[in-house]
Amino acid sequence: MPRRIVIIGANAAGVSAAAFARKTDRKAEITLIEKDKYAGYSRCGLPFVIGGEIPSLKNIILYPPSYYKMMKFDLRLETEAKGIDLGAKTVKIVDKEGREEELSFDSLIICTGARPWIPPIEGRDKKGVFMLRTIDDAKAIMEAMSTARKAIVIGAGAIGLEVAVGMREKGLDVTIVELLPHVLPLAIDADMAKTIQERLEEHGIRLILGKPVKRIIGDEKVKAVEVDGEELEAHMVVAATGVRANTDLAAEAGLAIGPTGAIKTDFRMRCLDARRQRPVEGVYAAGDCAESIHMVTGLPAVSQLGTTAVRMGKVAGINAAGGYAVFPGVLGSFVTKIFDLEVGSTGITAEMAKRLGMDVVTGMVTHLTKAEYFPGGKQIKVKLVVDKATKRVVGGQVAGGEDVTQRVNTLAVAIQAGMTVYELAMARTAYAPPVADVWEPIVLAADSVLRKLG
Amino acid sequence: MPRRIVIIGANAAGVSAAAFARKTDRKAEITLIEKDKYAGYSRCGLPFVIGGEIPSLKNIILYPPSYYKMMKFDLRLETEAKGIDLGAKTVKIVDKEGREEELSFDSLIICTGARPWIPPIEGRDKKGVFMLRTIDDAKAIMEAMSTARKAIVIGAGAIGLEVAVGMREKGLDVTIVELLPHVLPLAIDADMAKTIQERLEEHGIRLILGKPVKRIIGDEKVKAVEVDGEELEAHMVVAATGVRANTDLAAEAGLAIGPTGAIKTDFRMRCLDARRQRPVEGVYAAGDCAESIHMVTGLPAVSQLGTTAVRMGKVAGINAAGGYAVFPGVLGSFVTKIFDLEVGSTGITAEMAKRLGMDVVTGMVTHLTKAEYFPGGKQIKVKLVVDKATKRVVGGQVAGGEDVTQRVNTLAVAIQAGMTVYELAMARTAYAPPVADVWEPIVLAADSVLRKLG
Repeated sequence: MPRRIVIIGANAAGVSAAAFARKTDRKAEITLIEKDKYAGYSRCGLPFVIGGEIPSLKNIILYPPSYYKMMKFDLRLETEAKGIDLGAKTVKIVDKEGREEELSFDSLIICTGARPWIPPIEGRDKKGVFMLRTIDDAKAIMEAMSTARKAIVIGAGAIGLEVAVGMREKGLDVTIVELLPHVLPLAIDADMAKTIQERLEEHGIRLILGKPVKRIIGDEKVKAVEVDGEELEAHMVVAATGVRANTDLAAEAGLAIGPTGAIKTDFRMRCLDARRQRPVEGVYAAGDCAESIHMVTGLPAVSQLGTTAVRMGKVAGINAAGGYAVFPGVLGSFVTKIFDLEVGSTGITAEMAKRLGMDVVTGMVTHLTKAEYFPGGKQIKVKLVVDKATKRVVGGQVAGGEDVTQRVNTLAVAIQAGMTVYELAMARTAYAPPVADVWEPIVLAADSVLRKLG
Repeated sequence: MPRRIVIIGANAAGVSAAAFARKTDRKAEITLIEKDKYAGYSRCGLPFVIGGEIPSLKNIILYPPSYYKMMKFDLRLETEAKGIDLGAKTVKIVDKEGREEELSFDSLIICTGARPWIPPIEGRDKKGVFMLRTIDDAKAIMEAMSTARKAIVIGAGAIGLEVAVGMREKGLDVTIVELLPHVLPLAIDADMAKTIQERLEEHGIRLILGKPVKRIIGDEKVKAVEVDGEELEAHMVVAATGVRANTDLAAEAGLAIGPTGAIKTDFRMRCLDARRQRPVEGVYAAGDCAESIHMVTGLPAVSQLGTTAVRMGKVAGINAAGGYAVFPGVLGSFVTKIFDLEVGSTGITAEMAKRLGMDVVTGMVTHLTKAEYFPGGKQIKVKLVVDKATKRVVGGQVAGGEDVTQRVNTLAVAIQAGMTVYELAMARTAYAPPVADVWEPIVLAADSVLRKLG
């Protein structure tokens, strides 16, 4: 009898899991359950559709229906998983007509994702207050943008900044309100954030940092937002204040929820039994709903990024189909584009290190992306975070006009390999005048750390 | 008494050595001896001046005379070192007026560089046959280009390709003749070379591969080149057939010359005594004249690249000034730009591995530089070379429309860290639709190797 694999959630994690399960077991029966009308689309693309850089929401749907057929996936859209019975190895599902069905599984992969979370701000339920998670959310925001002139974004994480930039590109008057003292507060440090804040302001976005939104004002519909005693007129508000893992289904089934509030997993993405804290064979979690560990700190961590989702899905899918794959943890490698400025980071920030009680030394340089004498080079900043005790590189941040992502990747590989800053300073980087300088900024940043270490 | 440091050669290695010597010892007397009229210019920039991307030869002179004054370097241009007396610790120099002088040193850094080498082809001394090493060489080539219509480049290494592209950009009819079966024969494998060859041909450059130049025809001046029985009309010829280390001065002084024909150095860039093969205290070599070891093979190697020169110079400079620095070897990380195609490599190629008797597994993928649904992504190819015995990554090659250099750097760091392909496949890379895909091509190439390893 073929192996029956049920995957709850046909999102980045779920579709990746399905694809790798199929590669591992050509004969498995693979069923994908999805609440939404759309399967396998790129949430990360949504802000760029809003900004008009991606022409249409249709573009971000990654696979046509023929793909699911070709892969022999039984895709059930607008269908919800209502309960998991770990003993009987069944999942109860309900389709949009209310028809119930019980699916038996040999392997189950839980990819229930996350939902946007808005802090309990007065007025957060008013009309004109949006979140951005789904295609329908993006449609609603774009519709509101067609009549709005003034928009307020609450939260200066990646999604908040990307939506703000998108709305600004479309001509709206945009203000970002962030409770913490700088933009991208979890991904970069204040010094690096300054560069991004300047760029946002140059493009006419107002920033209010280190202040909470007191309340959202309006009758039925939003009219203004109160921050620090000021009433800011607003025709629409986008709350980008983070997401929370969807864990109800897993928790009700008796699976362990970790300290981050996400579903606990082991090194093979197996879920754990809540009582005994032992892996449950054949039951996996992947994506935004799943907790892993951080490769630098060793602490439980969620990394609700597309890259993490597909990688977790891959590991869960291979294991669910009888293969063997391990997930060594997350590093939080991240990048985005703010107008013409790319910014990214990996590992931990100096601010995060401080909170963890880790003594770090940092080095930051500003350099050019081409040889100085070659026309068209762009400015780039690289910051390194180095653990003082072991001299290992534990974090990196990069912001510049081009070539940021791959520098983040270089640093991610250095961190994963456990490289010390001494070794990184000896990196044998490549150079040609049209594409790089003879001294790579990463090497210069490492040198700057070495000077401080003495 | 201040430390007296004499540096022979004010090129990339020599000026880097001087700068780091100065950082290490603020009071040292640092003398730079240079045969040429110009100090510290970028040879790597020369082909791009020829192609017009860098406006003028003046641009590639890296430092104004005021820099040398500010750094308190005693810069002697158009001055030649004629002999080194290791016992007396002196260097005999002669300036352009023929005045001799003897300089005493505490530390000596030999940066005598390399000279272009043309194989003994009949007619290689004819007028109209050029090499590209110096500013004066570039001037001569540009002058010849102003009247020439047809040019032949002998040698398809980086310099050969860059000059060919530069001349083609300026409208010349260009043919490249390469003895070995593909372009960039030492840096990449045949499969990767195919992409570059197609791009060259698309831009109207003719390639004749795997054939020697039989002779250069003409009376006083070149008229044609004979290859494989064909007479190719030529108004000018550029021979880019490699360089040879300048070692006469070192050899005559009794310093050891290594199996590569360059000056043998130890891990601190110290020269060795030819008889006893032991380090000579206070005497260093750096740059194109110096031999090091290859970080992958452990064999003696020369890496006549700008990046290697400045890094060797740095280590020699620090040590010469009383500091402590080590040079762990070379990796040959390299990149260039061929029209709109960037191509680079690091470590060893599969062809090189075969010659060394190393059993390798390779993986190559073609992917996009942005998310598939994001407009403007460019094609990129990544090839990995993995040692079958240890599963370590030993080489990487990248070619694509953008973001090539930093991928080469990521691979260089992975190789330096001794990463296995299993670890590289788990690289926590960063992604956002405008700048990268969720699956990094390096990771996909690692997966492709893993599938072959089984």
